[in-house]
Amino acid sequence: MLDTFVIEKLLSFLKEDAYPEDVTGRFASGIKAFAEVKVKDSGVLCGVKIIVPFLKYMGLEIKGMSKDGTRVNKGDVALRFEGDGETVLAVERTVLNVISKLSGISTVTMEMVEKAKGVNPKVKIAGTRKTTPGLRDFEKYAIEVGGGDPHRLGLFDSVLIKDNHINLLGGVAETLRKVKSMTSFTKKIEIEVSSIEDALVAYKEGADAILLDNMLPSQVKEIVDKLKGKVILEASGNINPWNVEEYASTGVDVISSGFITHSSRALDMSLDVFRS
Amino acid sequence: MLDTFVIEKLLSFLKEDAYPEDVTGRFASGIKAFAEVKVKDSGVLCGVKIIVPFLKYMGLEIKGMSKDGTRVNKGDVALRFEGDGETVLAVERTVLNVISKLSGISTVTMEMVEKAKGVNPKVKIAGTRKTTPGLRDFEKYAIEVGGGDPHRLGLFDSVLIKDNHINLLGGVAETLRKVKSMTSFTKKIEIEVSSIEDALVAYKEGADAILLDNMLPSQVKEIVDKLKGKVILEASGNINPWNVEEYASTGVDVISSGFITHSSRALDMSLDVFRS
Amino acid sequence: MLDTFVIEKLLSFLKEDAYPEDVTGRFASGIKAFAEVKVKDSGVLCGVKIIVPFLKYMGLEIKGMSKDGTRVNKGDVALRFEGDGETVLAVERTVLNVISKLSGISTVTMEMVEKAKGVNPKVKIAGTRKTTPGLRDFEKYAIEVGGGDPHRLGLFDSVLIKDNHINLLGGVAETLRKVKSMTSFTKKIEIEVSSIEDALVAYKEGADAILLDNMLPSQVKEIVDKLKGKVILEASGNINPWNVEEYASTGVDVISSGFITHSSRALDMSLDVFRS
Amino acid sequence: MLDTFVIEKLLSFLKEDAYPEDVTGRFASGIKAFAEVKVKDSGVLCGVKIIVPFLKYMGLEIKGMSKDGTRVNKGDVALRFEGDGETVLAVERTVLNVISKLSGISTVTMEMVEKAKGVNPKVKIAGTRKTTPGLRDFEKYAIEVGGGDPHRLGLFDSVLIKDNHINLLGGVAETLRKVKSMTSFTKKIEIEVSSIEDALVAYKEGADAILLDNMLPSQVKEIVDKLKGKVILEASGNINPWNVEEYASTGVDVISSGFITHSSRALDMSLDVFRS
Amino acid sequence: MLDTFVIEKLLSFLKEDAYPEDVTGRFASGIKAFAEVKVKDSGVLCGVKIIVPFLKYMGLEIKGMSKDGTRVNKGDVALRFEGDGETVLAVERTVLNVISKLSGISTVTMEMVEKAKGVNPKVKIAGTRKTTPGLRDFEKYAIEVGGGDPHRLGLFDSVLIKDNHINLLGGVAETLRKVKSMTSFTKKIEIEVSSIEDALVAYKEGADAILLDNMLPSQVKEIVDKLKGKVILEASGNINPWNVEEYASTGVDVISSGFITHSSRALDMSLDVFRS
Amino acid sequence: MLDTFVIEKLLSFLKEDAYPEDVTGRFASGIKAFAEVKVKDSGVLCGVKIIVPFLKYMGLEIKGMSKDGTRVNKGDVALRFEGDGETVLAVERTVLNVISKLSGISTVTMEMVEKAKGVNPKVKIAGTRKTTPGLRDFEKYAIEVGGGDPHRLGLFDSVLIKDNHINLLGGVAETLRKVKSMTSFTKKIEIEVSSIEDALVAYKEGADAILLDNMLPSQVKEIVDKLKGKVILEASGNINPWNVEEYASTGVDVISSGFITHSSRALDMSLDVFRS
Repeated sequence: MLDTFVIEKLLSFLKEDAYPEDVTGRFASGIKAFAEVKVKDSGVLCGVKIIVPFLKYMGLEIKGMSKDGTRVNKGDVALRFEGDGETVLAVERTVLNVISKLSGISTVTMEMVEKAKGVNPKVKIAGTRKTTPGLRDFEKYAIEVGGGDPHRLGLFDSVLIKDNHINLLGGVAETLRKVKSMTSFTKKIEIEVSSIEDALVAYKEGADAILLDNMLPSQVKEIVDKLKGKVILEASGNINPWNVEEYASTGVDVISSGFITHSSRALDMSLDVFRS
Repeated sequence: MLDTFVIEKLLSFLKEDAYPEDVTGRFASGIKAFAEVKVKDSGVLCGVKIIVPFLKYMGLEIKGMSKDGTRVNKGDVALRFEGDGETVLAVERTVLNVISKLSGISTVTMEMVEKAKGVNPKVKIAGTRKTTPGLRDFEKYAIEVGGGDPHRLGLFDSVLIKDNHINLLGGVAETLRKVKSMTSFTKKIEIEVSSIEDALVAYKEGADAILLDNMLPSQVKEIVDKLKGKVILEASGNINPWNVEEYASTGVDVISSGFITHSSRALDMSLDVFRS
Repeated sequence: MLDTFVIEKLLSFLKEDAYPEDVTGRFASGIKAFAEVKVKDSGVLCGVKIIVPFLKYMGLEIKGMSKDGTRVNKGDVALRFEGDGETVLAVERTVLNVISKLSGISTVTMEMVEKAKGVNPKVKIAGTRKTTPGLRDFEKYAIEVGGGDPHRLGLFDSVLIKDNHINLLGGVAETLRKVKSMTSFTKKIEIEVSSIEDALVAYKEGADAILLDNMLPSQVKEIVDKLKGKVILEASGNINPWNVEEYASTGVDVISSGFITHSSRALDMSLDVFRS
Repeated sequence: MLDTFVIEKLLSFLKEDAYPEDVTGRFASGIKAFAEVKVKDSGVLCGVKIIVPFLKYMGLEIKGMSKDGTRVNKGDVALRFEGDGETVLAVERTVLNVISKLSGISTVTMEMVEKAKGVNPKVKIAGTRKTTPGLRDFEKYAIEVGGGDPHRLGLFDSVLIKDNHINLLGGVAETLRKVKSMTSFTKKIEIEVSSIEDALVAYKEGADAILLDNMLPSQVKEIVDKLKGKVILEASGNINPWNVEEYASTGVDVISSGFITHSSRALDMSLDVFRS
Repeated sequence: MLDTFVIEKLLSFLKEDAYPEDVTGRFASGIKAFAEVKVKDSGVLCGVKIIVPFLKYMGLEIKGMSKDGTRVNKGDVALRFEGDGETVLAVERTVLNVISKLSGISTVTMEMVEKAKGVNPKVKIAGTRKTTPGLRDFEKYAIEVGGGDPHRLGLFDSVLIKDNHINLLGGVAETLRKVKSMTSFTKKIEIEVSSIEDALVAYKEGADAILLDNMLPSQVKEIVDKLKGKVILEASGNINPWNVEEYASTGVDVISSGFITHSSRALDMSLDVFRS
Repeated sequence: MLDTFVIEKLLSFLKEDAYPEDVTGRFASGIKAFAEVKVKDSGVLCGVKIIVPFLKYMGLEIKGMSKDGTRVNKGDVALRFEGDGETVLAVERTVLNVISKLSGISTVTMEMVEKAKGVNPKVKIAGTRKTTPGLRDFEKYAIEVGGGDPHRLGLFDSVLIKDNHINLLGGVAETLRKVKSMTSFTKKIEIEVSSIEDALVAYKEGADAILLDNMLPSQVKEIVDKLKGKVILEASGNINPWNVEEYASTGVDVISSGFITHSSRALDMSLDVFRS
């Protein structure tokens, strides 16, 4: 991610909170302030890379920072910066809301990655498009920081044929053929199936990957036994930190989980400001 | 919220997912499709009011809808709409991500409101500024739909003096006096304190509301006993569905909770598309 | 106001005047130029704080400046800056139009403040929402520079129930009750009335402030006599520099005036450019 | 002006006032309302053409309207519209601020046009670039509605060499020659002079128009006597409704006035809303 | 492409040409006009799908249209529409510039597709990222209309390792391994090589596709003989309508050409407007 | 062109190519890279002035540059810059696409200027509005760099009455009179004619310039013989490098050509990146 695009997005978040005026913090204009982002729980830090260029753009000076991906614990200081009091107070909540949310995602991703790799060292934990509206890019980045695979960035970067597409375009084979014949050779084509039969059809029709949707681990296992190594196999559907090992142990290549973005909890952090 | 501003925001979310092109769904262009948003868990529905003008703007026809605030259960249909297959598939995830997230917030707000009012019928459950970056307006709306008080929309609409402001501007009394003398008569002034002494000072200096930050219920109770009815008293700091009753039973006027926006889980929903 | 938001707005003003090209000034590209903003009338200076970060953003160097709020007279130099001739000429009119307009507002505000405080030292002179479209934030700032109270920044920061709301929602009492029950505790609620009876009703129903709309000074006085000190009383409606003392002498708390923004005259200024 | 660009600008004005939420007017959502824009003073109406497509875009229905350019008097109704109460209340101030401001400009333009043409029937009253930042296009339109000439829309549409350009680029002759040789044949070239000598030089060098800056009427007359009919002559500099006849009677071709945009007063109007 | 995004882009093009005002066409306001887009050369029509929703958005009525992909000849009418004269004249050039440019691209694409398939029926003619800045999406669409493969939409949708990447990251094998290990499983990975040796290395390291850059047809042939059917082979580098057959006859899978976007000529068209 | 506006446009081009992420180039983050823009054909360089402020804005350092307007040949280095590898790779194509396209325009403009001036030393070669959508300002600049006249920047800066306007508004005389009476004195008025008779009418009615549309050189000559020196005469319509001398030799004042923008070929260039 280029800094210029990251800053643009953070300015829109700041605007939401502080435009046209911070009616409390403006009284601190002209007072030099020092700020510390303190972690209040255990987890994986994420968002510092995003926040730092933004703070610099706002005229603040970075006095210290941990790297994204660092495992942090209660009391750790993630970031220190300094500058005009009005600006420091205005950015406070934007900084915290972004870092807390992204660190929460990296934390749960890492948790699932570790659990899954414990039983299946080559498995990938991937995200989905069930991200927070407006935060897609940042959340995909948080997944990578947590050791996961971002999966598609959007509808534009690879083909994933789902049940709804098949409902409109025909059966598994027919839809796959039609889409394949009209899609750029630069794109992978994945298709979602919900039965062993459809998985076999998808393989025969040349899908690059097959998404096994909402299947029991035992069903996933059955397909893995048949197709492992011939096509990328991805399991998905209500997989979370509590059942991820079970799915991983089927030998599937990829496990994708909406939970890590739509239901992860923010990592608790606070920002302390002092006269410097 | 005026439709025109809501649509503008949803278009930016759609763009994030579907611009420049939905390389899968575009093959459904020209096929008329019918879609149903199905609820897969119990909760309070929120977001239909936001989604409907957006769908209309996209040229889709609404065929049925439940109202925001409705209690929903697994299997309920929240929304039905119809139109060109390419458009239906392109909006699918934006629709789901928005409704699921907001319904999750309304659901947990309602849960906390009911618990709190069970022991203190006049108490208000309020949000904070710990909202998802870019979703502030929608999340404040979801809090109201869940029966809560949105609290400040941002730094611009009322004064809330926090510890960081006091660190920069002086003590409780001095900061309050300075801010009060320079703030428009149209704004309420609230101040955060962490001791009984400061609460009494804040009251004497004419604060409109006092935020009791990170206090034990017993400490809150002590201040409530002294100041109830003389100034608005708000408890805050790690209050969640599991300890809200304890805080409510102190008799405090308002309980604010970041949990409802930063750590609520999305309400599970899916969208089924068929040829119509 | 944070510099980043101020600059964004000024760039849009510059674009209006100088995009895609200043077909005259472009011939001065490469020539170093020195510029002076000269005041040509007496008044209160306003806008330098806004213009300076913009000029710096445009790559110009500030060589001297007076502070907003300074009383200026014909011949005074408000601002000096230096840089590439093409840029200096391109920003000339934007700079002058902004400073002249805002200084005009601060000047008339100060005039009214002084007249009003002469007879009622505690009275506040407040703005209204009758500002120039697109300049709200800057004009509110100019009011504060002139010693006035900005009043509401927009429809979002506090409640002001006017005759049109009452026409739609019911009588004074009914509207006030309905709005009060559904408004966040963080917002003040003010209501506009046009009779003594309604003022008393509004007070009883717990309004935070009462706007006495288009009343004669004698009527205002009558209400002040009854409610002074119990609720904030604001007089409004065609109050201008020529009748403000009369209204101030009623003892009212606040006098708001659309005149200061919609009908104030720009303070005459010019910009002289030389080779440096 | 194409409706689509006008609407875009008005939405930004509405946003300034009503985003994220009209915390008072939102309670009128669902109530059908009827609104009338009433004139409260005498003048020339302007802005209806701009407001009407915006109101339609907002989903409101036009029930009656006067045309821009109509002479109006106290009590006249300029515009009637109907629709949802929340929307009607949200647009109220934007509508009034735009129409009042523009009508104020058209009114004073018409006044100056009539005075000037009384003594010099062919003279044109022109605007300047001393417009309100952000309102250039609308104010130029208001000048035309008042019978005036809009003059340059910005720095991009024709060349006007002023004293500051000459200070940087050389004397009148040298600057004119340089600019002429490098300017598209599609643009007129005007030059500002402050002496008879320079006016004659400018004419000889082939200027299309000469701006006589801050001269006494007698000086203008002297130049008019020499150059009338050979080159367009424009008088400018502190010309207002009180001295316009004197300048017009010199026989000059064009009189431009910053007064009509920077110091005109808004035409008083109000909007009354009722249940419909 | 969703209509809403297409319209947004076309409005920005219109703005470039017609904002703030069409000083000629505005005199046609109120006159109903009928317009015909006439083709003046032979080629493949492209852009109607893009222009039609834009014209509708502008309030114009479509009276007839040919489909994109139609082979057209001099005298053919591609599009007929009707509406207000000011709007018709304002959109004229935007409509023509878009349709002419895109049709020029589709035409040359089709020419190269036909030539190439004549000697190699399965070969694909693909675009590159050498598109006109700001027109990427539209030009990729024009390539598809001409029978070509759009190739990557941008840097975001699949991996293409070029010589510059290898210069920075290491040799072919090392770069490929590093990138592969850190790229989402959803993306194809292609690598550019300029020798047979590197092509073989790339194949062994598991590239999905290999781009043979600036090779002679004979060199391409040599690699095709070795790797055909094992990995996608793409030839690129100064391939144009005059040498495409030679490259196609090597048996390569894909031929990509910057020529079709950066050096194709617009298809000549005109727009005739009449009173309707 | 002010740098700030140029940068804004280039960022939008970069976004088109590299947002949200350059999935290949991001692996070069942290590696310092050096880049050279190399010319691969003969022509006139254009675009360096535009690219340089953009590269600086992106945090890259300029290490050497040729000036726009320089005649370049195969092997020449137009620009050298240095900085972070991820940024260098992300901007590569935007830089090349802009410089190649603009240099192609300057090159063909210069070619036509030289040919035309060979037979008519005072003739001007002008552009048209047949520019690439979104690139108008840059292409007009490229025309000037090539020695041409940019002609109108858009519909806003001068009046050009074409056949379509006459079709809607009346005959040549009637349209010209109507438009003249309602157009600002600051604008030139040109009219397109297709016969000698209409050219004479246009001259009598006081047009500032006459566009001779799609006439044979002999017809142009006939009009030039009658009107040369009395009014600006412009020939237009399918004039290109192969017939420009013939038109120039008629003695016409201006020759405008859409060819130079809509059908010029990009000047071949490449960018080489190395570790620095």
